[in-house]
Amino acid sequence: MYDGVFITFEGIEGAGKSTQAKILFQTLSEEGLPCLLTNEPGGTPIGNAIREMLGNTGFKDMAPLTELFLFSASRAQHVESIIRPSLEEGKIVICDRFADASIAYQGFGRKLPLTLVQDTNEKASWNVKPDITFFLDVEPAKGLTRIQNRIIELEVPADRIEKENLEFFERVREGYLYLSREEPHRYRVLDGSLGVDDLKKIILESVNKELTKRKFRKNLLFG
Amino acid sequence: MYDGVFITFEGIEGAGKSTQAKILFQTLSEEGLPCLLTNEPGGTPIGNAIREMLGNTGFKDMAPLTELFLFSASRAQHVESIIRPSLEEGKIVICDRFADASIAYQGFGRKLPLTLVQDTNEKASWNVKPDITFFLDVEPAKGLTRIQNRIIELEVPADRIEKENLEFFERVREGYLYLSREEPHRYRVLDGSLGVDDLKKIILESVNKELTKRKFRKNLLFG
Repeated sequence: MYDGVFITFEGIEGAGKSTQAKILFQTLSEEGLPCLLTNEPGGTPIGNAIREMLGNTGFKDMAPLTELFLFSASRAQHVESIIRPSLEEGKIVICDRFADASIAYQGFGRKLPLTLVQDTNEKASWNVKPDITFFLDVEPAKGLTRIQNRIIELEVPADRIEKENLEFFERVREGYLYLSREEPHRYRVLDGSLGVDDLKKIILESVNKELTKRKFRKNLLFG
Repeated sequence: MYDGVFITFEGIEGAGKSTQAKILFQTLSEEGLPCLLTNEPGGTPIGNAIREMLGNTGFKDMAPLTELFLFSASRAQHVESIIRPSLEEGKIVICDRFADASIAYQGFGRKLPLTLVQDTNEKASWNVKPDITFFLDVEPAKGLTRIQNRIIELEVPADRIEKENLEFFERVREGYLYLSREEPHRYRVLDGSLGVDDLKKIILESVNKELTKRKFRKNLLFG
């Protein structure tokens, strides 16, 4: 076991998880806590090359199983070279998406058998599991609108997964809700339609509670 | 089940398997038999992108598990979009390396647990198994010399896996010998130090025997 704390953010496209992951990282860093902010797929040079493949709209006939193995390849590298060593050093690791995303996207979204995805996840994550998972829940239609606005604003084309239809993201959301029922001890389901500051406050309270329970004795923010 | 015949070629670098796979493909094609020549990693646009990643010497810290999942991603795409449909159409599919290579390279070479590699192979190959596997056995030192000569001759740099040391390829060879003992019904161990024409003759005899046993009734080459 390790001394660090592993915090993941999950949600469909446009749920606001990347924003909240960054805010949490900044806040904890400013408090002087040893932190790391990372993301999947990616987090390593190999992971970033895989991320590019996964987003490539030229690969629109990618088999669901291929997609699962590519995410797993990125995850295996990420856990071995970044996440596990950082947790062993006692850091707070904040990760924008992790293994749950494969259950939600490849299991529920792509309809691969859940046992296959779970089994592959266990191998790829070397049995490293999040201590807290914030699931930012938004209506898929709302998430997609946010994504479309971002695409227009930033003038970047939608990637292979962002191009999926509403039914796909509805299944993905079902996947996350399933996980939140299966693993209530670590899941925090948050209303993604709340404002950025309200979400920030709820997330910090939850993290504060976890840190005071652990070796991070300093009563962080609301002491 | 399918009507086609699935023939794979295996061996360490420099064993001559790609040469023999091509010769077999040409010979069977000239006989008018429906054939396909393909290779792993690769065989599809996604597989070729993965092949490039796997060979990239910039990724020399690639975790063995990442390597396994990348090969599996390529394989899953290859089986689903090329190999299985071709076998279902009744073709003779000739593949330069397949799932056995993961047992030999990631299992024996990289020392990942065999059960993990076997289990991942089963998922990635959708339970498609070769009918015949030609293992071209050469002394690893000899194989490496052939590779080095080829590198000098073609003026291409060695890829990430070709850069491995002799002990690595000795373990890989052990892996193939293990497989040939475990699955004698489909394994044909050939002396890779034989000349190209001698090997060609032995391989054609073996394939001919298999084809006459099957729906390919035409007594192919030595009737």
